[in-house]
Amino acid sequence: MTPSSRLVLHDLAAFPNPARVRIALYEKGIFDQVQCVEVDVMNGEHRGEAFRAMNPDASVPCLVLEDGTALSQCTAIIEYLDAHTAAPSLTGINATERGVISMMNRRAEANLLDAVGAYFHHATAGLGPVLEQHQNRDWGLRQREVAVATLSQFNELLATQDWLAGERFSVADITAFAGMCFIGFTDIEVPETLTHLHAWHARVLARESVKAWQESLGQ
Amino acid sequence: MTPSSRLVLHDLAAFPNPARVRIALYEKGIFDQVQCVEVDVMNGEHRGEAFRAMNPDASVPCLVLEDGTALSQCTAIIEYLDAHTAAPSLTGINATERGVISMMNRRAEANLLDAVGAYFHHATAGLGPVLEQHQNRDWGLRQREVAVATLSQFNELLATQDWLAGERFSVADITAFAGMCFIGFTDIEVPETLTHLHAWHARVLARESVKAWQESLGQ
Repeated sequence: MTPSSRLVLHDLAAFPNPARVRIALYEKGIFDQVQCVEVDVMNGEHRGEAFRAMNPDASVPCLVLEDGTALSQCTAIIEYLDAHTAAPSLTGINATERGVISMMNRRAEANLLDAVGAYFHHATAGLGPVLEQHQNRDWGLRQREVAVATLSQFNELLATQDWLAGERFSVADITAFAGMCFIGFTDIEVPETLTHLHAWHARVLARESVKAWQESLGQ
Repeated sequence: MTPSSRLVLHDLAAFPNPARVRIALYEKGIFDQVQCVEVDVMNGEHRGEAFRAMNPDASVPCLVLEDGTALSQCTAIIEYLDAHTAAPSLTGINATERGVISMMNRRAEANLLDAVGAYFHHATAGLGPVLEQHQNRDWGLRQREVAVATLSQFNELLATQDWLAGERFSVADITAFAGMCFIGFTDIEVPETLTHLHAWHARVLARESVKAWQESLGQ
C-alpha cells in the first residue's frame, strides 16, 4: 500500500477466491502496486447496496482500475493483470497455450473450486444461517461428488505433466490450488493414493508466490 | 469441409453452446477452415467412452487441433480462435478490454446461459428422462430466478452502451446471445419493457455471423 497505488483490491485475504488474485499478483511481481481494502464478508458487506453498485456480482475479490473500472470474476481479473504486466505469463503465449490454459482453468473452477464451494455453502453450515439463505443440500452433495471425481481426473493428468495445463505453471494451477484450500475448510479428504496430485500440491506450495501469500496471512 | 481442414469441430449446430463457437468462427471469417462432425447428443454419444477419451467434460462443442489437442469449454475454444486468427478481436486488444470482456463473458455464461440451462435441465423435461438423470427442481427454479434477474441487469447496462462489454461487439455478446437462444427452448419470457435488451438482441441478429449461422441451420 503506497501513495502511488493505482489499483485497489477489495477482498478478504484468507478466502479461496481472493487467494487466486493475490497469488497471481505475487507471480507477476506487482503485489506492492495494489492497495488492499478488506471487505467485511462475514457481516454481508459484499451484499450491501454500496458494494453492489461497484460489483453487481456481490463477490470478492473486486479490482478497481485507475479509470474506475471495477473488475470482478477472478479469471477476468487475472486476465487483466496478465495483459497489464509482461512475463511470466499465466494465461499463455500462443493460441494453443491460451486455449488449453483457459480450458483447464475453467475445469479447475467449475469442477473443483466451485464444486467444493457449492458443497460448503449448500450441504454444510457454510458461513452460517444469516449468509446461507438458499441452501440446497442435494445440490451440494452432488457437487461434492463432482469435486471428488475431479481430484482423480487431475491426478491422472498430473502423472504425465508437472502442471495442470502442461509443462508450465499457469492460472489453472492457481485456481486448482484455491480449490485445495477450500477443501481444507470441509470434511472432503484427498486420498493418499492420489500421489501425482499430492506431488503437484507440494510443487505449488513451494512457489515463492504461494509462500508470500501464506506469510501475508500470518501462517 | 475441405481436404485441407486442420481443425475438427465435434458439435451439434442448433444447440446453444455449439452456436457460440460457430458464430465466433463466422466472425473470424474461418468457418470454412473447420471440418464439422455431428455428435449424436440425443442418444448420449457425448457421454460414451470414446467421446470422453477425447473430452472428459462430455460436452459439445469440442475442437480438435492439428496436433491432436482437444479443446472443450466454449470460452477456451474462442480464446484459441481469437489468438489463432487476427482481427476482428473478440476477447480484447488491451488489458482493460480483456478484463472487462472476460468478466462480462463470465457473467453472461454463469448468470444467463448456464442459469437458463440449469432451469431447462433440472426443472423442465429437459432432454428427456434418459439424459436427465440427476434433476434437482429446486436448483433449476432458483437458477431461473438468476436468469430473469440477469436480463434486467443487462438491460440496464445496455441503456448506455451498444454491447455488453462496451462499445465493441465481443465474445460476451455471443455468450449472452446463446443464452437468449436457450431461453427460446423454455417458457421464460423476456418482458417487452426491457427495450435496451431487445434492441441489443436485434443488433446481434443483424450481424453477418449470426445470419450465416442461422442459414446453416436451414432457418
